[in-house]
Amino acid sequence: MAATRIHHLNFVVRDLDAACSRFRLLLGLEEFERIDHAPRGSHIARARLGESWLVLVCPYDPDSVPGRHLAEHGEGFFLLSVGSDDFDRHLADLLARKALAAPAEVRSGILDWRIADLPTAGGAMLQLTDDGRD
Amino acid sequence: MAATRIHHLNFVVRDLDAACSRFRLLLGLEEFERIDHAPRGSHIARARLGESWLVLVCPYDPDSVPGRHLAEHGEGFFLLSVGSDDFDRHLADLLARKALAAPAEVRSGILDWRIADLPTAGGAMLQLTDDGRD
Repeated sequence: MAATRIHHLNFVVRDLDAACSRFRLLLGLEEFERIDHAPRGSHIARARLGESWLVLVCPYDPDSVPGRHLAEHGEGFFLLSVGSDDFDRHLADLLARKALAAPAEVRSGILDWRIADLPTAGGAMLQLTDDGRD
Repeated sequence: MAATRIHHLNFVVRDLDAACSRFRLLLGLEEFERIDHAPRGSHIARARLGESWLVLVCPYDPDSVPGRHLAEHGEGFFLLSVGSDDFDRHLADLLARKALAAPAEVRSGILDWRIADLPTAGGAMLQLTDDGRD
C-alpha cells in the first residue's frame, strides 16, 4: 500500500470569505465551492490545486474538533489527507504493522469522501481519504 | 497566472530519521532523499507524494528561520509551496495587484529550486517554487 497523492490540505480559518479571497488573490485559484458540514460543525470551502484540494474549514460549533483546534492554535494548518492506492488495504496494513492500536474508524467527510484519521507524524495530523477516484 | 499544483509541503521536525520512518510507515512512502541545506541551517529529507514533494526540515542552526519556527511552535507544518503556470509573471501580477508591498526576493531552495516567499493566507506561510518543470 502507498499514498499516491495529497488528497487535500485542511486549514482552519475564522472568516471563510476573507480566507477564500486571500488564497484566490495570492495563488490565482478558481472559485471556491461552499459546503456545509454539520458533522464537523463547520462551513467548508474547497478549491482545486492540481491533483489536490485546498480545503478551508470555518467552525461555527466551538465544541467541534476544528472549533477546538481553532481556539487552541488559531488559524492555520489543520491536517494533511492523502489518497492511497487501496484505502481499505492501507488501513489493514497499518493495523497489521501495529501502526494503529485498533481498527481505524471510517467516517464520512464532505460529499461522499470516506475518511480515516491516522496517528500524527512530524507533529502533523494525518488522514486517509477515499473519494472513489484513487 | 495560477497555481497549478502543490509543489511541496514543509514540516519542521526535531529528529529527521524518526520523522522519515514515521511518514514512511504511515503513508507507505518511498525512501526519502537527504539533502544538506546550509542557507536554511537545516538537514532536509524529501519524498515524492504524487505530483508534490513532502519535505522534512530538521534545523541544526537554532537561529535559522526553521530553527526559530521549531523553537516557537514545535514540530509540525511549516509552509505550503505551490507551483505556478508562470513563476515570474505570478510574482509580477501580485506586485501589480498590491498583494506584494515590494518586488519578491527570489532565493535558492534545495537543488535548483527558485523560491519566493509570499504573504500568509489562512494563518499559513505560502511560497512559490519554480523547479524548472512548471
